[in-house]
Amino acid sequence: MLGLGLIGGSVALALREHGWHVTGDDVLRDSVERALAGAVIDAAGLDPAASITFLASPVLAMPDLAKRALAETTGVVTDVGSTKATIVAAIDDPRFIGGHPMAGSELEGLDGADASLFQGAVWVLTPTDTTADATFASVASVVAELGAEVVALPPERHDAVVAVISHVPHLTAATLMALASERAEEHAALLRLAAGGFRDMTRIASGHPGIWLDICVDNRSAIVDGLAGLIAGLQSMRTVVADEDRVGLHERLQHAREARANLPSRVTEPSELSEFRIPIPDRPGAAAEVFTLAAELGVNIASFEVVHSVEGNRGIAVVLVDATCTELFRGGLLARGFRPAVQRLQ
Amino acid sequence: MLGLGLIGGSVALALREHGWHVTGDDVLRDSVERALAGAVIDAAGLDPAASITFLASPVLAMPDLAKRALAETTGVVTDVGSTKATIVAAIDDPRFIGGHPMAGSELEGLDGADASLFQGAVWVLTPTDTTADATFASVASVVAELGAEVVALPPERHDAVVAVISHVPHLTAATLMALASERAEEHAALLRLAAGGFRDMTRIASGHPGIWLDICVDNRSAIVDGLAGLIAGLQSMRTVVADEDRVGLHERLQHAREARANLPSRVTEPSELSEFRIPIPDRPGAAAEVFTLAAELGVNIASFEVVHSVEGNRGIAVVLVDATCTELFRGGLLARGFRPAVQRLQ
Repeated sequence: MLGLGLIGGSVALALREHGWHVTGDDVLRDSVERALAGAVIDAAGLDPAASITFLASPVLAMPDLAKRALAETTGVVTDVGSTKATIVAAIDDPRFIGGHPMAGSELEGLDGADASLFQGAVWVLTPTDTTADATFASVASVVAELGAEVVALPPERHDAVVAVISHVPHLTAATLMALASERAEEHAALLRLAAGGFRDMTRIASGHPGIWLDICVDNRSAIVDGLAGLIAGLQSMRTVVADEDRVGLHERLQHAREARANLPSRVTEPSELSEFRIPIPDRPGAAAEVFTLAAELGVNIASFEVVHSVEGNRGIAVVLVDATCTELFRGGLLARGFRPAVQRLQ
Repeated sequence: MLGLGLIGGSVALALREHGWHVTGDDVLRDSVERALAGAVIDAAGLDPAASITFLASPVLAMPDLAKRALAETTGVVTDVGSTKATIVAAIDDPRFIGGHPMAGSELEGLDGADASLFQGAVWVLTPTDTTADATFASVASVVAELGAEVVALPPERHDAVVAVISHVPHLTAATLMALASERAEEHAALLRLAAGGFRDMTRIASGHPGIWLDICVDNRSAIVDGLAGLIAGLQSMRTVVADEDRVGLHERLQHAREARANLPSRVTEPSELSEFRIPIPDRPGAAAEVFTLAAELGVNIASFEVVHSVEGNRGIAVVLVDATCTELFRGGLLARGFRPAVQRLQ
């Protein structure tokens, strides 16, 4: 574990809860000592024999941390940064895979660390052609052990997606809050009238600005693009309101309402599962492609592991998916050249 | 009670819980029957002797309802619409005062009605020069009985304020949701990654579009103005991100964070109170002005009543405020020509 803040501390606590031996280091000596004292880690430092090393620092510091971990340990290495294209481009190593747990807290630092932070959260992994199948399978398995649902995406796609569902909403919350606060100078009672909806919408603006500076630099183009999309949407909304276009307004609100209602629920517990056994072709990133395809198709993966036949290096991905998605997933796999064997589990 | 939907039903339930005899009517005969069957109201119709009549219909129907209630009853009349300038301009009667409880629910209609909906909520009243002091005091007292905190504002100011803290945020939530849903066509996994912050920000977009059509027509200019302010803020944010202006970004996020942290908490329970006894000058709207001044100064009013001396019609407002605001409120009252007598309560 390199980096013992909110996320790093939470990963360490969750790993220890599952029986792992966890060593940890941080640029702040004080954090290491507090992590030891608080039983967040078992020992200080970076264990050369660690089977997996998580990197949990601000995003711009990740590439150097990754190089250190790859040089000093023999296991797999993954990071938990909020942007992925830069780190993945900088680290070209079969033992490395980028990751991003979609979990947070209004708390900060080691004191806010919580072993249950990842229960039911989505944890994105961003394998590339370089990533070894074993690296992907091993990190996916540990992440699932922490209670998270693994979704695999190409790094650039991850960055475009989080710009829309995380970075732009965050900057929008800050802008709404600033607008209200500015108008409050004119209308003293304004902020007293702020009810639940406004509080919900601006809650994320209460977070520490620090990490957002790096994120906005690192994911600049996707954020600028997302903000442009939002501004265009608001300009269109303004026109509809200004023109008293009730039909246009109703269409927009109804569409948003339906989209909101269709937000996928958190990790589902499928009552029935299908088991896919998929021979992994001998080409780079093939195992990850199975996962990426599942994400594209909206297929919920309940379990994923790569097993190897005794005869050789060819692996078989054993994947459990929600039984209702069986045919969809089979169709997708066949179309991508995989040869899955499917069995229904009761 | 005219109108037996979510808000009307909730007011009726809360009044009955406080021992009131409640009669109610609705354009939907079915709603009246269900309200009777569910013990939401005691009797159907509009009681000519009702001491107070609440109007709870879509905003564009309010003026006609108000005329009916003023013609058919002898008591005071108030509405619960989300916009105030139009109704208040249409109804020029000392027995009428506009109102707006800042409370809602994700539920809809009579079935969502809840007697505790207004506990701790802000309830805006919008007195004008026409409003009789007795009307203001009587409605304020009933509203306080329902557990709400009364804030008095001029109608136009109310509309400008709710545009910023309610209407614009609602349209923004819908626009963010639409942006995410549109980009989801390109990135199938996008909506699965939507974590807590995004869900918080878009929750209000799950409401029924119906009432928003009237609101957007009725409060058009303040909403268009608020949207323009938000768009300008987002354009500035986009420039800061595009230019990698870390200082500018930090300033904006830090400012938003501080403003969010300083959002007034819900109804406070002051540990110490000051009692103001304020003779009400013989001019229209003077009692309401006391309340409006308190809102402007951010003074939390714990209790408000108007008592009349035996000798005549001159009323005395007896107002309890948070003791920490004593000097501030006294200064404001003196500056506006009031002559308050102040006593500290333990």
